[in-house]
Amino acid sequence: MQAEIITIGDEILIGQIIDTNSAWMAQQLNAIGIHVKQVSSVADHPADIIVALTLASGRADLILITGGLGPTKDDVTKQTLSVYFGCGLHRDPKVLAHVESIFARNNRPMLEINRRQADVLGKSEVLFNEMGTAPGMWLTHKGKSYVIMPGVPFEMKHIMRERVLPRLRHLDGRQPLWHQTVLTAGIGESFLAEKIADIEGALPPHIHLAYLPKPGLVRLRLTAIGENKEVLKQETAAVAGQLRDRLGDHFLANEDTALEMLIRDFMQQHGLSLATAESCTGGNIARLITALPGSSSMFEGGAITYSNAVKQATLGVKAETLDTHGAVSEQTVREMALGAQALFRVDYAIAVSGIAGPDGGTAEKPVGLVWIAVAGKSGVAAHQFLFGHDRAINIERSSMAALFMLWRLLHAENTE
Amino acid sequence: MQAEIITIGDEILIGQIIDTNSAWMAQQLNAIGIHVKQVSSVADHPADIIVALTLASGRADLILITGGLGPTKDDVTKQTLSVYFGCGLHRDPKVLAHVESIFARNNRPMLEINRRQADVLGKSEVLFNEMGTAPGMWLTHKGKSYVIMPGVPFEMKHIMRERVLPRLRHLDGRQPLWHQTVLTAGIGESFLAEKIADIEGALPPHIHLAYLPKPGLVRLRLTAIGENKEVLKQETAAVAGQLRDRLGDHFLANEDTALEMLIRDFMQQHGLSLATAESCTGGNIARLITALPGSSSMFEGGAITYSNAVKQATLGVKAETLDTHGAVSEQTVREMALGAQALFRVDYAIAVSGIAGPDGGTAEKPVGLVWIAVAGKSGVAAHQFLFGHDRAINIERSSMAALFMLWRLLHAENTE
Repeated sequence: MQAEIITIGDEILIGQIIDTNSAWMAQQLNAIGIHVKQVSSVADHPADIIVALTLASGRADLILITGGLGPTKDDVTKQTLSVYFGCGLHRDPKVLAHVESIFARNNRPMLEINRRQADVLGKSEVLFNEMGTAPGMWLTHKGKSYVIMPGVPFEMKHIMRERVLPRLRHLDGRQPLWHQTVLTAGIGESFLAEKIADIEGALPPHIHLAYLPKPGLVRLRLTAIGENKEVLKQETAAVAGQLRDRLGDHFLANEDTALEMLIRDFMQQHGLSLATAESCTGGNIARLITALPGSSSMFEGGAITYSNAVKQATLGVKAETLDTHGAVSEQTVREMALGAQALFRVDYAIAVSGIAGPDGGTAEKPVGLVWIAVAGKSGVAAHQFLFGHDRAINIERSSMAALFMLWRLLHAENTE
Repeated sequence: MQAEIITIGDEILIGQIIDTNSAWMAQQLNAIGIHVKQVSSVADHPADIIVALTLASGRADLILITGGLGPTKDDVTKQTLSVYFGCGLHRDPKVLAHVESIFARNNRPMLEINRRQADVLGKSEVLFNEMGTAPGMWLTHKGKSYVIMPGVPFEMKHIMRERVLPRLRHLDGRQPLWHQTVLTAGIGESFLAEKIADIEGALPPHIHLAYLPKPGLVRLRLTAIGENKEVLKQETAAVAGQLRDRLGDHFLANEDTALEMLIRDFMQQHGLSLATAESCTGGNIARLITALPGSSSMFEGGAITYSNAVKQATLGVKAETLDTHGAVSEQTVREMALGAQALFRVDYAIAVSGIAGPDGGTAEKPVGLVWIAVAGKSGVAAHQFLFGHDRAINIERSSMAALFMLWRLLHAENTE
């Protein structure tokens, strides 16, 4: 089955936003055997939208349209589609009640332009949007399927996950296809490739291996295309097993998950508690953990100790240690980790101190130098890392390295 | 002058990479008065490329094409363009010498497929690429201009900056265009629209207003098209001034920036210091601030107080307060803010406590209920918010609301 994506919005064509929606949608569609033939980004102009729709309808069976569903005048998608499909708009009572409830919750008076958010295309089926006021719509027209969604990424993703993808899985014309992810950590892409070269070389032609790096992690994605999905599942599972054996400590999971999620689940299951003491990561590690529902069952709290005075006052790092070894040193992160373990009364504590950049580096301690310690049941593990020059990437890589150190210590101390 | 962008590559259509090139190119083109009408992403298939080219040539005067210029089999752009333009390929000696020098420098043997990198379209002018092996090309065909560039972002940007933009600046038919952004906070899109309806309604036809919401913020973008850029600048500045007066406290800046950046700059300039005390936002506010270079000049540290025990132990919140009013209450966030102000010895402290969800809500204190306090020089301001059901969005909106409260208090206490 062939699909096309049309993204609508002046903000894309003047370069004010980068279209991240299309790549995400394409990944999701590919995963269920639907092939994206073209992505077209057009302005909030009715004529442009109609031309793009006409052309896409001539090439594809499924057309996904995002953007231009807001309440303000510059958003013209719904009016334009009602012309294109030759159907009117009508106000959907369930959507209206939902929009009203959002305004009531926020104690905000409701205007006519907000009510218009509940207007949907006459021939369409509503794809309910719990996350916002603009509903999605599904429409069949001259044998083609059209999915209309808001352009706000989290609203689009919600509607795709909950309403669109489950429905597309039942459409005909998809070729059996199976993806199996193997998540790895603590090893770079090229080293990984070297380590598994013979396994990759021996793959049959219908199984493809892709390397998808994220900071600190590499996802290996096996994609198999064939006639029978059950056979594809077995074949990719066998390869994933070989990879797991080869990767040892660097193997994390047979799914595309997050390291902090694996940690939350492990600590919950083993009744363990965690705290963080962060300098250069500035709260990012705590943020990653507390972004997860249920993290309060294992996360007690954290200290963000940006200045030396705060490192002493909150975590009890000794003035002498800071004077002698500096804030970015093994001794300091060890004291930070032990201080956090005591202050927050937890089983495990992570401590990070480094030079994120762009300023603050010296010849001896350059930008990108990071010390990480993890305190556990049997002592403290500490390691030095040297990342790069980019502040954002240093913060992200430090966070992932710290979580991976915690993951290893958790396994060493809590599994036989 | 109208332009279109065609990006070529399977990796875009399977969602393996996000197309960031188009937004960058669009920004550069807009800045010199060239309007991008459409962006089309197509696969490495000759027929798809030819159809996209034909359609774009019918709509625009300038067509920019990126991608598919690599040496491997899957890259078909050059061969396809030689068919489309009815011209052959010939090997360019200067490009060949450059490619050979790159291989010599890296001590790599050179294959025939590498030499083919030096083949250029017969009718084209070479846009020399110092950054890589694939040259750019400029071609005029039936009165339209075509720019062909590699898809690797830094190579494309180099060719655009050094070869393409200087040339485009001398083309006729560019229509002067000016963008002016007005950043607002603390007011929803529809209310904003209502509040400025008369200003929007009175805009002349050549000035267009767009609403671009982000969590907690709305960017207003004025786009003016006319004959004289200086006049357009003055006209949009006048409208921005009207908007500023109308928006009052909700006006943040006359540029597209981040609230935390405005706060960092303001606090740096006024020699003020900040700390955070976060419960439901779990370190996200500190993370936003410390992501900024130079934040150590105004940010001392923070406490992430997930459990009640930690709220007492670190910030000195009274057990009685937690027992009587609960962790999500005005009294608790006030004590958290004052506790953080004292512990970290700072001028300003932000405190947040709420129920991020999905669990933990009650009839009295539902998911989405958040209390925020900001302690400053003259006391503590506290507000209650009721956001939605989504954990990630509640964290993001709470963070933005807290930063906006801080921003207002900073202005109230530090400007005449």
